[in-house]
Amino acid sequence: MFIEGKNAIRQAILGEETINKIFIDKNYSTRKDEIISLAKENKIKLEFLPKAVLDKKSKTGHHQGYIAETIEFKYSSVQDIINVGKERNEKPFIVILDGIEDPHNLGAIIRSCECAGVHGIILPQDRACQINETVIRTSTGAISEMKIAKVVNIKRAMDILKEHDIWVFGAEIGGNDIYKQNLNIPLAIVIGSEGFGIKKSVLANCDGVITLPLMGKVNSLNASVACGIVIFETLRQRLS
Amino acid sequence: MFIEGKNAIRQAILGEETINKIFIDKNYSTRKDEIISLAKENKIKLEFLPKAVLDKKSKTGHHQGYIAETIEFKYSSVQDIINVGKERNEKPFIVILDGIEDPHNLGAIIRSCECAGVHGIILPQDRACQINETVIRTSTGAISEMKIAKVVNIKRAMDILKEHDIWVFGAEIGGNDIYKQNLNIPLAIVIGSEGFGIKKSVLANCDGVITLPLMGKVNSLNASVACGIVIFETLRQRLS
Repeated sequence: MFIEGKNAIRQAILGEETINKIFIDKNYSTRKDEIISLAKENKIKLEFLPKAVLDKKSKTGHHQGYIAETIEFKYSSVQDIINVGKERNEKPFIVILDGIEDPHNLGAIIRSCECAGVHGIILPQDRACQINETVIRTSTGAISEMKIAKVVNIKRAMDILKEHDIWVFGAEIGGNDIYKQNLNIPLAIVIGSEGFGIKKSVLANCDGVITLPLMGKVNSLNASVACGIVIFETLRQRLS
Repeated sequence: MFIEGKNAIRQAILGEETINKIFIDKNYSTRKDEIISLAKENKIKLEFLPKAVLDKKSKTGHHQGYIAETIEFKYSSVQDIINVGKERNEKPFIVILDGIEDPHNLGAIIRSCECAGVHGIILPQDRACQINETVIRTSTGAISEMKIAKVVNIKRAMDILKEHDIWVFGAEIGGNDIYKQNLNIPLAIVIGSEGFGIKKSVLANCDGVITLPLMGKVNSLNASVACGIVIFETLRQRLS
């Protein structure tokens, strides 16, 4: 589906729609532009095209230089994710992604979560990769089996989980040895961004920090690999 | 460094050099060409350029339409990798990659291996991603700490490991539950390719098969994530 015009696209970015890409009149590429800023903050792809190409794409004839391409993906709520555990009669098992930026990492994480039986994934609305075509392709079908919630405020989402007696652990260096930590509890695990890890304010709101042992010199794991190891350790403990 | 001419490049592909990319006269792009076939088999990037550009790049003036760009990376031998365990006084801990094709996956696997304290990685020479700039960049420095052997024949390399009393386990569906398998033994783990898993002939030469539990419907893990989970489970058992 396509959404045309500045206001409609602003609403869509801030709302429920899943935008794959925004086509913008290439004459706007150098000026201060609200849609460009919003798209960059929300990690939405931009493509600058000649006005004539936009005119041809437009169905309404009133694109104002902006056409957004949406994809069919329905986000869930945090409560929907909590309900999965109840339906399956399992202790909550939730992943919170605090700012994953790379669509290949996000797609791989969705795959891993589906394999490990995670109940759902919580993403922030801002400054993080959203669901787009690359994520869907990289998830190799897993996305259709996984509930994903997009939230304005990660801390508020953590508080909702805590109100449901779910422990929130951050996966970050400097915490407790993951292999000595009991993970067979109602649990949400926070995974940080590729470049910066978990934000300070989010980490401060965690009930605990779990850490993988690192035996090398460089000691830098890819974010999707780290997430996979942590959720499969959780699964191992629950199965044993 | 650059290598010029058909014969020199053929030797380089089959030999010890690490080729990042081959520039080829674009007039050759459609004809049956030995270098193009060899490059494709060995997953080496090709770039087709006008002859005039090659003439400019050429140092020798005798490029014959072929210039290969090499990178400084020194492969190790299987014996070098076995020696790491002896030097560290640790049970062998080796990863064999049976045909990883994506350089981002290979880079991420090198990162994970460095973090988990793996002694070295064995790659096949044919039909698999070789060390190139993308792999080096994605490994975020880990490549300089990791011994990597390139072998003509994976099965022969497995036999060398077995002669050194190292167990070779394939990570593949349909095997023993990894969490019930003792991995605190002299061990090499085979990881299959993204699309096809471990080759039948390689799997038949394994001493055992280990399998991750999969709880979902789609159940397809990214190869670098699967490798990370398996080697960290090995590390967990060794540390406990």
